Amino acid sequence: MNIQEIIAKKRDKLELSKEEIEYFITNYTNGKIADYQAAALVMAIYINGMSDEETTNLTLSMAHSGDILDLSELGTVVDKHSTGGIGDKVTLILAPIISSFDIPVAKMSGRGLGYTGGTIDKLESIPGYKTNLTIQEFIQNVKKNGISVISQTLNLAPADKKLYALRDTISATESIPLISSSIMSKKIAAGANKIVLDVTCGSGAFMKNLKQAESLAKMMKKIGDLANKQTVCIITNMDEPLGKAVGNSLEVIEAVEFLKGKMEQDVKEVILELGSYMIKLAGKGENIEENKQKILENIANGKAYEKFKNWISSQGGDVNFLENVQNFKKAKYITPVVAQKNGYVTSLNAQKVGEISMNLGAGRIQKEDTISPEVGIILEKKIGAEVQKGEILAYIYANNEELANKQAKNLEEVYEIQENKPKLKKNILEIIA
Amino acid sequence: MNIQEIIAKKRDKLELSKEEIEYFITNYTNGKIADYQAAALVMAIYINGMSDEETTNLTLSMAHSGDILDLSELGTVVDKHSTGGIGDKVTLILAPIISSFDIPVAKMSGRGLGYTGGTIDKLESIPGYKTNLTIQEFIQNVKKNGISVISQTLNLAPADKKLYALRDTISATESIPLISSSIMSKKIAAGANKIVLDVTCGSGAFMKNLKQAESLAKMMKKIGDLANKQTVCIITNMDEPLGKAVGNSLEVIEAVEFLKGKMEQDVKEVILELGSYMIKLAGKGENIEENKQKILENIANGKAYEKFKNWISSQGGDVNFLENVQNFKKAKYITPVVAQKNGYVTSLNAQKVGEISMNLGAGRIQKEDTISPEVGIILEKKIGAEVQKGEILAYIYANNEELANKQAKNLEEVYEIQENKPKLKKNILEIIA
Repeated sequence: MNIQEIIAKKRDKLELSKEEIEYFITNYTNGKIADYQAAALVMAIYINGMSDEETTNLTLSMAHSGDILDLSELGTVVDKHSTGGIGDKVTLILAPIISSFDIPVAKMSGRGLGYTGGTIDKLESIPGYKTNLTIQEFIQNVKKNGISVISQTLNLAPADKKLYALRDTISATESIPLISSSIMSKKIAAGANKIVLDVTCGSGAFMKNLKQAESLAKMMKKIGDLANKQTVCIITNMDEPLGKAVGNSLEVIEAVEFLKGKMEQDVKEVILELGSYMIKLAGKGENIEENKQKILENIANGKAYEKFKNWISSQGGDVNFLENVQNFKKAKYITPVVAQKNGYVTSLNAQKVGEISMNLGAGRIQKEDTISPEVGIILEKKIGAEVQKGEILAYIYANNEELANKQAKNLEEVYEIQENKPKLKKNILEIIA
Repeated sequence: MNIQEIIAKKRDKLELSKEEIEYFITNYTNGKIADYQAAALVMAIYINGMSDEETTNLTLSMAHSGDILDLSELGTVVDKHSTGGIGDKVTLILAPIISSFDIPVAKMSGRGLGYTGGTIDKLESIPGYKTNLTIQEFIQNVKKNGISVISQTLNLAPADKKLYALRDTISATESIPLISSSIMSKKIAAGANKIVLDVTCGSGAFMKNLKQAESLAKMMKKIGDLANKQTVCIITNMDEPLGKAVGNSLEVIEAVEFLKGKMEQDVKEVILELGSYMIKLAGKGENIEENKQKILENIANGKAYEKFKNWISSQGGDVNFLENVQNFKKAKYITPVVAQKNGYVTSLNAQKVGEISMNLGAGRIQKEDTISPEVGIILEKKIGAEVQKGEILAYIYANNEELANKQAKNLEEVYEIQENKPKLKKNILEIIA
């Protein structure tokens, strides 16, 4: 076997065997296959595609290219993953809700890059919260408190890391087999038995339309099933940001408010749908509608919020900030964005909002950048809202006046306001279970 | 403009503009575009193809990536190029024939690599012959003697050199746009006004069947015409080696004998066809059949052979070796290969003969290898010949007895002998003028 033969097969639209895919992944990870050879193969995969079996084999090979987290002593662990969005505080809210049903939550999360944020950055905006536990501490934490969320410390799926960086430089990102194997390899390496995937769709998501999102969701479900990890995909709307807050501590505050019962409608629908399927996969409730009621109960009776506090304090976070969110450090400038005319908000491009948030310092342009936890955006009006000229659409939270004004101007332009009320998209677009 | 956009266009089967192709070639040559990005683009070109215009633009960009030889002071220079073969001594014979018609011959040739030989290696087997003249000496030589053949000293088409090496490592060699642009870029950089291409076809050639050879020939003719370099392609048979001799001084000796009138039929047909079109392109004779007669005349009256001697001596070569070919250094062992049964030779795979010659030391496995001018093969029987058991099929010329015996055995196996006389292929398969 050699890499030239493998490239030639895919170039000629033939199916690669499990052994050939493993050969490629092993030798690319250890550096024996050069980047230019991997680039040629990746481009051939992009153009000629991969069968379900090939994609599953690629996923498993990448999953096994580094450490595999063994969570078997915890019983059935249901992981949740989002394909990326703006204002996505779902993990912050869902993790304690799921834990409140005595379902173990053992999650590794990532940092943000580009216009999307990361759960780890959001958690680190809570003073004291430690994201870098050892694996032993992590598992002990789950055993003791039922929940732990840490940053990715293990060398999970290094082949994916290498290929992901390469794909970016050679215009080979938007490929269903490559995206789905990238996501699923990390999930499998992270040790979950069952997986609920939030497949975002729209202007702020990787998948811009429902057809693409469906293809990706179906592929990931197939991989999960073939890899013996039961998988449910929920396609959610990401045409505008999720909820009101975009920015790290601002999103934590929104999560706290949610768990105290003040729920934005779009966040609520997403939380109830994902949460209900997680409960179902964990074997704690077959009926989705009943599960939704149970979640609302555990919010109303305070169990979910108590769990949240337990979790945060068990990892060193100062719960006083959760109890009194006004204690969070405030941005120096809070600049309103005002409607320039009467009408309805018809568009609020999520990616553009994410870019504004990134430019304010809430996200990273380069991996090495540091972020400011307190900056970001609060969206007072979202798509469908009726607004009057002069009314406040949103607030920019910034530490620099000039930047605040500039980004307020940018955000004003992102808001499209028209005369007629737009047809609203559903928050839950499709469920592939 | 950036390379990612260019890759994405070709990935999506769109046509690249002249500017995009130039951007790629310029920045790949100067190292600003990485090998892995070039690899992705090359694979996309391989799979999705290129239009005639794109291929021509690629050719011209590569031709202009380094030095361009200016031969304008010599008038109309007709270059001749072969896409590669075994026992191909055509340039040695054709150069003096063409020069004998007062058509300037100013040719840069290459060394052999792998199973194909190179004209420069063959010429260097003549003691004293200098292949590394300066460009000034080269042009002065052509002006004074009408003919000069040197090795490629200029930095001709460095982009092609880089891409060619890359293609080899990523299974992207057999692509008509990439092969044709590679060949034509070097021809254009080498300064010819008009080009006759010997497109070889068969077991010893890059193009294994007539359909592939036709596609390549048509593409190269189109590039030539679009680049304002009139081009004629002659598709010739390379199922078995050309002529009797394979090996450096052995081929020089066959060339001398040819010019003295002892012509092998296949070599003769190829020489007459290519030469007649070169004469025609040079404006020295419209009628191909008449041109063939004129060539035969210049062989019969000794003009071509005289020209050969003038040429060789003008570059320092010792003409005594041509006059008395027995003076050439002989290989230590001359081992006969004997027929094991009665019948007809039905196959004599040219590539396999080339590999035997290479293994004997007549060619290079690696670029750095040194060659032995005196080793090689003399084929006494070729396809279609009737043979008796025990009759000599060929001689192995080697400097090592063990190697001689081993390669004699190998060559014996390359000779296929069957009961029925095979249908003979034509030597000239097609002319695309």
